[in-house]
Amino acid sequence: MSGNYSRFVELGRKIVAVGRNYRDHAAELGNAIPDKPLIFMKPATAYITEGSPIKTHFNQIPKGCTSLHHEIELGIVIGKKATDITEANAMDYVAGYVLALDMTARDLQNIAKQKGHPWEMAKSFDTSCPVSAFIPKSSIPDPHNVNVWCKVNGNMKQDGNTKDMIFTVPYLLSYISQFFTLEPNDIVLTGTPAGVSAVKSGDVIQGGLDQLIKIEFRVESSN
Amino acid sequence: MSGNYSRFVELGRKIVAVGRNYRDHAAELGNAIPDKPLIFMKPATAYITEGSPIKTHFNQIPKGCTSLHHEIELGIVIGKKATDITEANAMDYVAGYVLALDMTARDLQNIAKQKGHPWEMAKSFDTSCPVSAFIPKSSIPDPHNVNVWCKVNGNMKQDGNTKDMIFTVPYLLSYISQFFTLEPNDIVLTGTPAGVSAVKSGDVIQGGLDQLIKIEFRVESSN
Ligand SMILES: [Mg+2]
Ligand SMILES: [Mg+2]
Ligand SMILES: [Mg+2]
Repeated sequence: MSGNYSRFVELGRKIVAVGRNYRDHAAELGNAIPDKPLIFMKPATAYITEGSPIKTHFNQIPKGCTSLHHEIELGIVIGKKATDITEANAMDYVAGYVLALDMTARDLQNIAKQKGHPWEMAKSFDTSCPVSAFIPKSSIPDPHNVNVWCKVNGNMKQDGNTKDMIFTVPYLLSYISQFFTLEPNDIVLTGTPAGVSAVKSGDVIQGGLDQLIKIEFRVESSN
Repeated sequence: MSGNYSRFVELGRKIVAVGRNYRDHAAELGNAIPDKPLIFMKPATAYITEGSPIKTHFNQIPKGCTSLHHEIELGIVIGKKATDITEANAMDYVAGYVLALDMTARDLQNIAKQKGHPWEMAKSFDTSCPVSAFIPKSSIPDPHNVNVWCKVNGNMKQDGNTKDMIFTVPYLLSYISQFFTLEPNDIVLTGTPAGVSAVKSGDVIQGGLDQLIKIEFRVESSN
């Protein structure tokens, strides 16, 4: 593993995300606690960085969505190619971290779940993955003991700790790599704690990881 | 639009796929004819090219799957960045075509559909997108009148024509671009005609597009 992962947004090819990885969040949406990780993906076109709004070219975000939710998550930035890696070695494949929002069209997701359809319309649309700058691995000595919080317009909505994850980072990386090769600059989103809620145009979403990093994104619709 | 798309496997960042785009295939799996395109994605790590087997590092392909299906599909290679494009202009964004297999873990997909889970475990695993070489746009004057066929061990399984697509190529590109920006070297898989069936280790899958191109992939499991 070498070099500079600050350009993961530009160079990375996939975002692998884990659903229902905190008990309190699974419960708040009425979902069972999973017995294995629930995996979905976003494409690199979902990325935005600070300064860019969460939006599409439509009044709805995305089109057809009237319930856009924030999900604040710790992300793992992959440092080397990982196929079928063990849990014991998994941390060797981690280049660093990122703070991310897994923006979710909750109404479209509910329809997809009901109909047995894929989740991409609800999870993978443009601007659905706002991210912080790259956080070097050394800045987070223990990824299972870090506060992750999210405010909307200054009001605390999500205030969790990664110690409450159901599946740990090494477990997730090993599991994912059995099905999907992870490449350098890919990221893995580790799930969100309770407190997700809907945002609307004009809202400001802030998120933080302990005192390490803070992000701020504005929600904007256009015609 | 300029240049050379022969390296789309290496340079492309996403594969957008359309489900149930042929009436006869929707019917054979007991699905309703959709009123809008059913969209899912595969990551670039799903690609393989001729000479590489369809496989994973497990006896099952992917792990947990005992019903791996071939779906032969016409793919569109994107030539320039497309966000919210019109149907009328959509063909301007096409660089060319590709013949692809949308390999599907049908049993895992059925479980995902039943449980309302995302489809990635069934659709997006390593080696789930075998592809041909790039086919220049000029080789296919009408993408809605081309035979697409698939044989397993020499026996014809799928023998369709793109004229039977429910949603046309321009319609699909316009629709997809309203939610997901398409980038150069991304591909769009346009769905499969009837005749999908399970393959097992040792099987040889061949596919063709008229007399234009032919592909051959071997299914292999390993331990
Ligand atoms: Mg999430
Ligand atoms: Mg594997
Ligand atoms: Mg298909």
